Amino acid sequence: MSSSQPLRGVVPPVCTPLDASGEVDTVSLTRHVEHLVSGGVHGLFALGSSSEVAFLTDRQREAVLRTVVEAGAGRVPVLAGVIDMTTPRVLVHAEAALDAGADALVATAPFYARTHPAEIARHFRTLRSRVDLPLYAYDLPVSVHSKLSTALVRELAEDGTLAGLKDSSGDEGGLRRLVVELGGRHGRADGPAPSFSILTGSELTVDAALLAGADGVVPGLGNVDPAGYVRLHDAVRGGDFDRAVKEQERLVELFGMVDAGPESEMGRNSSAIGAFKHALRLLGVFAHGTTAAPQIQLGDASVALVEERLRGAGLLPVR
Amino acid sequence: MSSSQPLRGVVPPVCTPLDASGEVDTVSLTRHVEHLVSGGVHGLFALGSSSEVAFLTDRQREAVLRTVVEAGAGRVPVLAGVIDMTTPRVLVHAEAALDAGADALVATAPFYARTHPAEIARHFRTLRSRVDLPLYAYDLPVSVHSKLSTALVRELAEDGTLAGLKDSSGDEGGLRRLVVELGGRHGRADGPAPSFSILTGSELTVDAALLAGADGVVPGLGNVDPAGYVRLHDAVRGGDFDRAVKEQERLVELFGMVDAGPESEMGRNSSAIGAFKHALRLLGVFAHGTTAAPQIQLGDASVALVEERLRGAGLLPVR
Amino acid sequence: MSSSQPLRGVVPPVCTPLDASGEVDTVSLTRHVEHLVSGGVHGLFALGSSSEVAFLTDRQREAVLRTVVEAGAGRVPVLAGVIDMTTPRVLVHAEAALDAGADALVATAPFYARTHPAEIARHFRTLRSRVDLPLYAYDLPVSVHSKLSTALVRELAEDGTLAGLKDSSGDEGGLRRLVVELGGRHGRADGPAPSFSILTGSELTVDAALLAGADGVVPGLGNVDPAGYVRLHDAVRGGDFDRAVKEQERLVELFGMVDAGPESEMGRNSSAIGAFKHALRLLGVFAHGTTAAPQIQLGDASVALVEERLRGAGLLPVR
Amino acid sequence: MSSSQPLRGVVPPVCTPLDASGEVDTVSLTRHVEHLVSGGVHGLFALGSSSEVAFLTDRQREAVLRTVVEAGAGRVPVLAGVIDMTTPRVLVHAEAALDAGADALVATAPFYARTHPAEIARHFRTLRSRVDLPLYAYDLPVSVHSKLSTALVRELAEDGTLAGLKDSSGDEGGLRRLVVELGGRHGRADGPAPSFSILTGSELTVDAALLAGADGVVPGLGNVDPAGYVRLHDAVRGGDFDRAVKEQERLVELFGMVDAGPESEMGRNSSAIGAFKHALRLLGVFAHGTTAAPQIQLGDASVALVEERLRGAGLLPVR
Repeated sequence: MSSSQPLRGVVPPVCTPLDASGEVDTVSLTRHVEHLVSGGVHGLFALGSSSEVAFLTDRQREAVLRTVVEAGAGRVPVLAGVIDMTTPRVLVHAEAALDAGADALVATAPFYARTHPAEIARHFRTLRSRVDLPLYAYDLPVSVHSKLSTALVRELAEDGTLAGLKDSSGDEGGLRRLVVELGGRHGRADGPAPSFSILTGSELTVDAALLAGADGVVPGLGNVDPAGYVRLHDAVRGGDFDRAVKEQERLVELFGMVDAGPESEMGRNSSAIGAFKHALRLLGVFAHGTTAAPQIQLGDASVALVEERLRGAGLLPVR
Repeated sequence: MSSSQPLRGVVPPVCTPLDASGEVDTVSLTRHVEHLVSGGVHGLFALGSSSEVAFLTDRQREAVLRTVVEAGAGRVPVLAGVIDMTTPRVLVHAEAALDAGADALVATAPFYARTHPAEIARHFRTLRSRVDLPLYAYDLPVSVHSKLSTALVRELAEDGTLAGLKDSSGDEGGLRRLVVELGGRHGRADGPAPSFSILTGSELTVDAALLAGADGVVPGLGNVDPAGYVRLHDAVRGGDFDRAVKEQERLVELFGMVDAGPESEMGRNSSAIGAFKHALRLLGVFAHGTTAAPQIQLGDASVALVEERLRGAGLLPVR
Repeated sequence: MSSSQPLRGVVPPVCTPLDASGEVDTVSLTRHVEHLVSGGVHGLFALGSSSEVAFLTDRQREAVLRTVVEAGAGRVPVLAGVIDMTTPRVLVHAEAALDAGADALVATAPFYARTHPAEIARHFRTLRSRVDLPLYAYDLPVSVHSKLSTALVRELAEDGTLAGLKDSSGDEGGLRRLVVELGGRHGRADGPAPSFSILTGSELTVDAALLAGADGVVPGLGNVDPAGYVRLHDAVRGGDFDRAVKEQERLVELFGMVDAGPESEMGRNSSAIGAFKHALRLLGVFAHGTTAAPQIQLGDASVALVEERLRGAGLLPVR
Repeated sequence: MSSSQPLRGVVPPVCTPLDASGEVDTVSLTRHVEHLVSGGVHGLFALGSSSEVAFLTDRQREAVLRTVVEAGAGRVPVLAGVIDMTTPRVLVHAEAALDAGADALVATAPFYARTHPAEIARHFRTLRSRVDLPLYAYDLPVSVHSKLSTALVRELAEDGTLAGLKDSSGDEGGLRRLVVELGGRHGRADGPAPSFSILTGSELTVDAALLAGADGVVPGLGNVDPAGYVRLHDAVRGGDFDRAVKEQERLVELFGMVDAGPESEMGRNSSAIGAFKHALRLLGVFAHGTTAAPQIQLGDASVALVEERLRGAGLLPVR
């Protein structure tokens, strides 16, 4: 993946299968990469938030990344999340990712430590200059608690620091301003290949985001139904918005599985990741639905709700 | 506007012209209603946030609403914001709005006082039962500091409390879930008229929102270029997404005027409202660009930036 | 209360008794003022947050303020909250408060509308210049969603805009910096009378706040036990910190009543105000424990918890 | 440090000296430990936020902790921060801390990943059961973006999971409720040794916190003036509140150094840590004032402001 061939399409954040003891299940992970690639996805994002990167030790991160790279076998590019609090710690992960064969890095702004926009810019510039891989900025205010401004992203896009943006901020208006400032959707989609990839993490409005000029999508739910997201992407690219909307609405209903865990008992994140993992177990891809500590595990009633959504979306036979 | 004829289309939040002393300029306001209606808008939202409702005294609110109703002359429905902290205070505004001839009410959740979802539900139900006008919920977390949940809006839609939602939360994913839960876009747009109107306040992604199933839009920038938003709406309704995206991108560039005021000197809200008002002055609609106290006024350099955006968007002759 | 006699001591925010229909119960309110003044308080803060000012219509606010002023009969100064979104609306309340006989005004920064520090400064300066009463700034980020900076308060103290600060921000470190910047506690307490009153809203750490240099306290719980807060204040002023801490700890236990309402059913604010009002009912001061709409009312089990706390603190005979 | 000898007194979070290249300067660190211990402190908190723990690689963290333990030479207990996003990653740091000779661990709630109170409880219980060292909870909402509730801390105190709390939440009222629920200050200070240590991070209100029942303080500014904080602590313990307040006010003025860096150029955290480090350089303890990447370094004008504060507080000769 050179910077002259920007990333487009469906790039799921690869869920990390764990065994009952919490160790990485590389057999299931290899099977999952096959599930995704055969579903037609255009790239793989390992070690993202939906991969439970925040819960994986450095040793586990390496195991995950090496497995994904090996299983992917060069068929699609592999982006590696290098998620940590500040520049020096992120650099350690970045060097490990380079060594493990990643095609690009995905980094957030610093977190835990409070920072200034000038420090965030310095953070990305240092990462880019120290590790020779294309760098994506990951805008995820719900975890990082700061928002990358349109002006900062534009500056770092124009000076070549960033190869792209993975936008999970939910700020669709800000993203639209960025698209227009970078030349607009028509300049991007119909003209020469853009030199900067905009990937949205908004898995419930992919039709809208692609219409608005996003290059691709990083859907957590794409772990469960990669082919559905590929069909949705293809429909928009082919100009068939009616079909795109229908596919998106089916995926929105499928997404309802994230509410499976009771709010009084577990976090929304644990519920969503647990639902994706149990769905993959029910589909025969994962051996277990286990999530990492200290997350609460889904109970039987919750798993039954997940199964119901899979049947409703046509991914399991209706009983 | 009966509840069997739900609101669709472009419904700008009507900016409130003030004279140099801060009093409501009813002559300019009458001219502005004509500007909007002749631009083809489908409704008028008086006393919204972009109308500076938070800055207007009760006496001024009444003057504004009576002027808009009279100038509109029944050609389009007039929605009236009844913005205040809690149920008893909102009821006072609601009765005044009924008396002034409004066709519907728009109310937020309580603010200043911290509330519970059960109290928010009780708030909307009390308003609906005490004043006989269709009621829209106004979801504006940036001002109200709480978010209306999809579950709550759905409950209040299904039991007839709410005639619609004006969603300025920026949570496009949540809005999509609501659309799907209410039957989906195809059920909404192609089938029988929906009984619940979803209006988005996301003026930079109207093409996307209408694609996703919103019924209409409440664009602050629609004060400046109502005809542009009407063309955008019509393009989507006619299935011409290429034209819609081009019109939206032109409006995104025009929107850049909201950054006219320097961040070091004034709030983002003052800058945006000041820009819209000076744009309307430059277009010959408003006599003054004054914003209400304690907002800082735009300086000459800022007004020049506004003018530049108007020329760039083709709303003033290029010099 | 002239600006040369700054306010010190215990200044409870006066709870507003309502009858079963939600109307102001002026008979109970008159009795309550007597309860407070005979408890030894040094001032009365009518129309504060604990007075449910956000829930009272303008007509009700006037009834409350006139009743408090009349019942107080000049024995202690009456501060009047003039709580509304922006300068023009606050000015309406300020003129009404002047007319009703208030001795000083208490105003927050603008809310609902997003503002800039320069606009907040302009807000307070406009209020001070337009209504001839001493002005207190009310720092309440939990409701207003912005924090008054130490620098801004100091500037407005030094230029005479503000007569004092009612600090409910919980930022004790910031408050300490302000005290030191204004000359320190020893300069304040032992030297000439300060020209600026710092009142803390932190009712659980009054001993600490007075030690640190606050001039007084505005305790919501002081509605229930004014004499307890007066004893606590007197103990600190007399240098008897052991007695002060014991009194404070008794009041902290009494304060536990604010958790009477179940979190799953009502807001924390409704629970706290409901608890204070039912406590006053049990003490024979209020006729009803009703809170204003849309707040949820305390149930019997919750009221029993309130009663238990009153007995534990020695305010009702132990059964 | 056994759990029967709870920690009391002044426990500074030890700043980490870096050389110009960003590597840990163990020579300066050894000198700094001597500076602190000879200043009379009662414990050392290595790898806290003021130690720039978020910026240190695992290798650097180990170098820091081994140096502090060796230099401390058992004269005072060494607490080790084990700051990372989730349980599995924190466990890696906890095992390294045990191996390096720490006397206790200090851990936050999970961050980056969003969690539920039940998951936070599980996090602390897992840490305690897996590594045999006393465990302190570190409540730091400004970094972690969740607040430990009084109920949760009390539960984990009573079941023996936690040996103490380092409270940097700024919620003094909540802390007071915890003190009272655990038996009150008089039960704590005058009776048998408490089994749970409450340490406040509120370095500007130590007199007040100790009065209210805190066992000790973790002052970032204690790096610069450990003897001052020890005098303050001793004054309160000896009941001389006048002397305590005077010492605290001197330290508040000294603390003003944290504003040395211009807000337009760097984060508040970078300014504060940079100020402490340059102060230590001016005092002859550190060789450099360098802060870790991507923080902006203090310029000459800022360093001059730091020096001025040192002179004002009597820590450098007045020129």
